[in-house]
Amino acid sequence: MNKEGILVIISGPSGSGKGTVVSELVKTDSFLLSISATTRSPRAYEKNGEHYYFYTKEEFEYMREHGQLLEWAEFCDNYYGTPRIYVEKQLKQGKNIILEIEVQGALQVKKLYPESILVFLIPPNLEELGRRLINRGTEDKETINKRIHRALEEMEYIPQYDYIVINETVEKAKKDIETIVAAETMKCSRNKKIKEIFKGENV
Amino acid sequence: MNKEGILVIISGPSGSGKGTVVSELVKTDSFLLSISATTRSPRAYEKNGEHYYFYTKEEFEYMREHGQLLEWAEFCDNYYGTPRIYVEKQLKQGKNIILEIEVQGALQVKKLYPESILVFLIPPNLEELGRRLINRGTEDKETINKRIHRALEEMEYIPQYDYIVINETVEKAKKDIETIVAAETMKCSRNKKIKEIFKGENV
Repeated sequence: MNKEGILVIISGPSGSGKGTVVSELVKTDSFLLSISATTRSPRAYEKNGEHYYFYTKEEFEYMREHGQLLEWAEFCDNYYGTPRIYVEKQLKQGKNIILEIEVQGALQVKKLYPESILVFLIPPNLEELGRRLINRGTEDKETINKRIHRALEEMEYIPQYDYIVINETVEKAKKDIETIVAAETMKCSRNKKIKEIFKGENV
Repeated sequence: MNKEGILVIISGPSGSGKGTVVSELVKTDSFLLSISATTRSPRAYEKNGEHYYFYTKEEFEYMREHGQLLEWAEFCDNYYGTPRIYVEKQLKQGKNIILEIEVQGALQVKKLYPESILVFLIPPNLEELGRRLINRGTEDKETINKRIHRALEEMEYIPQYDYIVINETVEKAKKDIETIVAAETMKCSRNKKIKEIFKGENV
């Protein structure tokens, strides 16, 4: 009864494990990952339209000025953003889309698509977050402390999110997000055409 | 992380099978059924506080005038209603409560408890509804037509409900309602104390 797909936006602090959870969800074939646009140069293995859509700065700015991006941000002198056309096309075809973006971008998208779902993923506690960052082994102590501080800042945005998922295990977090999407498909606000089920019935 | 229970209100036309679905949910021990108050005489097997709370008309009117009922209605010269105290006590103890009531009563309760969940249960189509009513064998054709007409009227209220569940099978409808409640427990609006998880953590 639910024709249009659902746009699921996942945010969470660095170390929350959102990358792993998102890739597990995409594996189920119930979700497509949104492909970002960027102005940075493609790496050797990266394919246009698969890993990213690659644009020049001028092209990106044109898209931005003409409402063709759902959200965008600048990072290390390069632009990153979410092209509107890909997301809208897939949603119209009934596909669910996952967008993994940080809090400001997430709130930008929610403004444009109030029917999107904002999910905030958090690790079970701060100790666990610290442990996950340390286990990566790629950051020094100062960087780790900065990230934890940033994580606490991002958590201030939780009240603006729709759902909160505690990432105790990847399997459970994945299942929780599937549960949220399953419930959302039953929302009356997403099923305005319900009476069509009864159309043309004779009893 | 979710301390307070959830109040789930289930409505649906006669023949939607809501009685069966509700009793299956109560069997799982995850839900308590709200016990109604009534002024009608108890039947031989009925126990006060188990099947109903039995009151005199004067007692019922006192409760009604003093805000002690979540909703009430008059039917065949008797009053029926939902006592507030039982529901609130169980919710505070973290128990989920199911209330099986008709549309007007449901909307009364939603006004008092905006955080309650309104679920509308419908049979897969009108033909199926007719079949279910006929199979009961207790009603003549005119009564059945009246009920179908009433069912269509009740469906006008669907946009005011939160969720719609199609009762294809009892097992699936039960699972759908469990999914809805599981997702609702992850709503940020129900987890205002989330920061307490992080309280007292040292990293």
